[in-house]
Amino acid sequence: MAQVPEITGSILVGAENHSGGKTFNAVQAATGDLLQPPFQEADASHVAAACARADEAFATFSEAEPELRARFLQAIGAEIMSVGDALIERAMLESGLPRARLEGERARTVGQLEFFATVVRDGAWIDATIDHAQPNRAPAPRQDLRRRHVAIGPVAVFGASNFPLAFSVAGGDSAAAFAAGCPVIVKGHPAHPGTGELVARAIGRAARQCAIPPGVFSYLPGTTHALGAALVSDPRIGAVGFTGSRAGGLALMQVAAAREVPIPVFAEMSSVNPVLLFPAAARRRGAELGKAYVASVTLGSGQFCTNPGVVVVLGDSDHAGFQAAAASAMQECLPQQMLATNIHSAYMRGIGDWSGRPGVQQLARGAASADPNRAPGVLFGVAADRFMADASLRQEVFGPTSLLVGARTLDEMAEVIESMEGQLTATILFDEEDIAQVAALMPRLQRKVGRIIGNGWPTGVEVCHAMVHGGPFPATSDVRSTSVGALAIQRFLRPVCYQNLPDALLPAALREHNPLQLMRREDGQFCAPAAAR
Amino acid sequence: MAQVPEITGSILVGAENHSGGKTFNAVQAATGDLLQPPFQEADASHVAAACARADEAFATFSEAEPELRARFLQAIGAEIMSVGDALIERAMLESGLPRARLEGERARTVGQLEFFATVVRDGAWIDATIDHAQPNRAPAPRQDLRRRHVAIGPVAVFGASNFPLAFSVAGGDSAAAFAAGCPVIVKGHPAHPGTGELVARAIGRAARQCAIPPGVFSYLPGTTHALGAALVSDPRIGAVGFTGSRAGGLALMQVAAAREVPIPVFAEMSSVNPVLLFPAAARRRGAELGKAYVASVTLGSGQFCTNPGVVVVLGDSDHAGFQAAAASAMQECLPQQMLATNIHSAYMRGIGDWSGRPGVQQLARGAASADPNRAPGVLFGVAADRFMADASLRQEVFGPTSLLVGARTLDEMAEVIESMEGQLTATILFDEEDIAQVAALMPRLQRKVGRIIGNGWPTGVEVCHAMVHGGPFPATSDVRSTSVGALAIQRFLRPVCYQNLPDALLPAALREHNPLQLMRREDGQFCAPAAAR
Repeated sequence: MAQVPEITGSILVGAENHSGGKTFNAVQAATGDLLQPPFQEADASHVAAACARADEAFATFSEAEPELRARFLQAIGAEIMSVGDALIERAMLESGLPRARLEGERARTVGQLEFFATVVRDGAWIDATIDHAQPNRAPAPRQDLRRRHVAIGPVAVFGASNFPLAFSVAGGDSAAAFAAGCPVIVKGHPAHPGTGELVARAIGRAARQCAIPPGVFSYLPGTTHALGAALVSDPRIGAVGFTGSRAGGLALMQVAAAREVPIPVFAEMSSVNPVLLFPAAARRRGAELGKAYVASVTLGSGQFCTNPGVVVVLGDSDHAGFQAAAASAMQECLPQQMLATNIHSAYMRGIGDWSGRPGVQQLARGAASADPNRAPGVLFGVAADRFMADASLRQEVFGPTSLLVGARTLDEMAEVIESMEGQLTATILFDEEDIAQVAALMPRLQRKVGRIIGNGWPTGVEVCHAMVHGGPFPATSDVRSTSVGALAIQRFLRPVCYQNLPDALLPAALREHNPLQLMRREDGQFCAPAAAR
Repeated sequence: MAQVPEITGSILVGAENHSGGKTFNAVQAATGDLLQPPFQEADASHVAAACARADEAFATFSEAEPELRARFLQAIGAEIMSVGDALIERAMLESGLPRARLEGERARTVGQLEFFATVVRDGAWIDATIDHAQPNRAPAPRQDLRRRHVAIGPVAVFGASNFPLAFSVAGGDSAAAFAAGCPVIVKGHPAHPGTGELVARAIGRAARQCAIPPGVFSYLPGTTHALGAALVSDPRIGAVGFTGSRAGGLALMQVAAAREVPIPVFAEMSSVNPVLLFPAAARRRGAELGKAYVASVTLGSGQFCTNPGVVVVLGDSDHAGFQAAAASAMQECLPQQMLATNIHSAYMRGIGDWSGRPGVQQLARGAASADPNRAPGVLFGVAADRFMADASLRQEVFGPTSLLVGARTLDEMAEVIESMEGQLTATILFDEEDIAQVAALMPRLQRKVGRIIGNGWPTGVEVCHAMVHGGPFPATSDVRSTSVGALAIQRFLRPVCYQNLPDALLPAALREHNPLQLMRREDGQFCAPAAAR
């Protein structure tokens, strides 16, 4: 495959191309071959330069009118589309993901930028709030007090290997940070540096078109932990968005906590996304559900953060049809192309380890292949008491595998949930007759997860107002956050209050005559803008 | 003074009285005498018991209808008032604060509970959000998605010595946590354990009246760091509210970050609250402002987190009248009664240290007294370059002192701001002619502080929707939070999403026909409840 002309391997500090002292190459996932060109390794000097530019750009960008930021987000989407097929082809090479999946992911990425443009325009994120003065109040007058949300500062973004577009350079973290008014510095993922550069240059073009200072975005490709640590340590960084492994997320949390000025880290790390199968649903729709289960487990070679890694089944006989259908589907599963050598190796180690665990039974194993980074889908079974006794079975094994956990009673099902760590999602498969049992478990489920899914599968995360893609630790580092959906913008905002200031010194959002035509809370009441009244 | 009958010195675990192995006594601030009765020292066993009760109470309390929680908050206020003068008298003994101040603080505390009752009833904190299914959407249907906020878990509260009522047992952190649906465990402040117990028993009575499980509240008096660390370490605790010293807040942040499951700590710690005096205001109103400045510095013996610790004046001659009036007012200042021996000693060390710093001039010193815990008010002056060169001058000295910093130019004033750490507040004193200069500094101020006050003083924190009592580190540990005002409830909430669930499994806030009559966001639009349409 010919080199895509636009990929230079440069470090992008604002609009400038930089070189580093060392280089690295991307690897073709399906063959293990090195891809060209080599990429410059960013180091602490590039971090410092990028942070200086981001800091300079902050004042302008964070106070830009919402419309400008909305147009910037849309321009990024348009520029990504304008890269055309070269982007899909490079991403296919680097990630081993198939064309249809990557085209879908690109659509989702662009759709997400569009969505955040509507979020910025809508202005609810500003949370404009006014309590007017009450000069005659006794015993003391009330001052005029006005509050809004402002950008938290430049944001460091660490993308994920499994979504080279939607959770990477112009993914959800970057879109939410730009929407909030924060400059973004991306530490490029070494598994897809070319894809990353193509998208990074699209962002740069969009900034130029919108006359936004180029320091609003920098792209620092690299392979070292030191690069990430330098970025998170820089005093000009105000927050961190991360999607990846638990070890990686924890390392960045530690760096952030050890700073002179600690900053929030929003890390989405690890989840096994339990599915609870209730008896009536298992009896009535077992075969259909079993097949759908394996489709969800093997979707994208199982490389989703919402992959259903555990299904808890209830009763001894009800789920026989479910289990048989799942085993049969897994048996037929073709070798799964994985993203990269380290991910493939970790997966093979993980299923090897599970195979040897006491009480764990291999229920089905898909086809293997000797080609690079191909993995078999595997279905395991284990009794609830063994699952609860063996912490290693409750850890995420990233890839196309899942564990059927047999609980004898509803109480035992509840104990299984209780034994698990925090999760992004829990899924309940139930029929009408199961509802009382489901209802009894809901409070417990809610304390463990960020999203509860009824009669569906956790894979597939909608970008909308109501989405929560977050959850208790270790699903994320901050249970109060989501990395997908409108609420994701709040990670990168902070409140500021203005007391007794004249209109001339107030930001537009809080001026008395509401020039931005925002929905505001005034003296405790929500007030629609005059135009909407 | 006779012992107030209701004070027993017990540890309160839910509704039960417990004893510990050791005891300690409260100290009368004005005399240094020990007060009776002795207080039981809570230890790790009481932490475990209190956390178990809180955890049991969580499911009921967090899902109680908002109206019940609102009534609970109001009942706490009523029960605090019903303690009557015994509460004020005990607080006067323990804190050395005068009657009028404590009566005002009690009114504020009760008012804050009332305010949070309106916040709970209003329901905006639920952030109820619905994106309906779009079964015919291409290329994939959208599922029905609904989101609300729920309580984060039991909350550990550490009160402040300087507000024995409003930032202590039933203060802002407890009110916000109860409002959010979180059980509360208070680590009682050793400087006002009797005041604390009287309020703790009022909370217990309120819970009983409202038939709320007693585990919703426990009160653990104690003097050791180990007690606080045990409480923050307990896996059942979901968040921490703290008001106090920087060292104390940092210690709790470290404990929380080192947990197996890290939790958020909302610590309000340290602020010197710079005031910027602009030339026209200084010329026109210098004398009046100088007098008001010293009134704010010495209010409550300077023991407010919003005490104006630094005033930056501009130009060489414009502020002569301001400085003369301030010095004269400080000279007349009577000896200041401080809260406790350790606070008095730290203050005396602080002003002693400043007196010996190169370039620091003592501009005025109020009267001294040999009585226990009395301190002189002191006004210092220093040139901007010395202030910026000497980090110790930028640290908070808690008490009735302040530092006049002379900047030669607007640029130097900006550099002074830049040299400072994060702050709760900044205050600007200006006249019409100063506005262009003020406007030039606003972006910089905004990055440093949580609240910007025009032509007023930072002391006096209104409890309302628009308030922000927070700010960049070290003012608080989390710049995204406030510990006063409606937004304070959000510290103790997390989002949960429900996908494709029938009404029977949805919480009331999200059921299709809106039984709680909430303002909701549906398919991107804000919808008033039917009753309000």
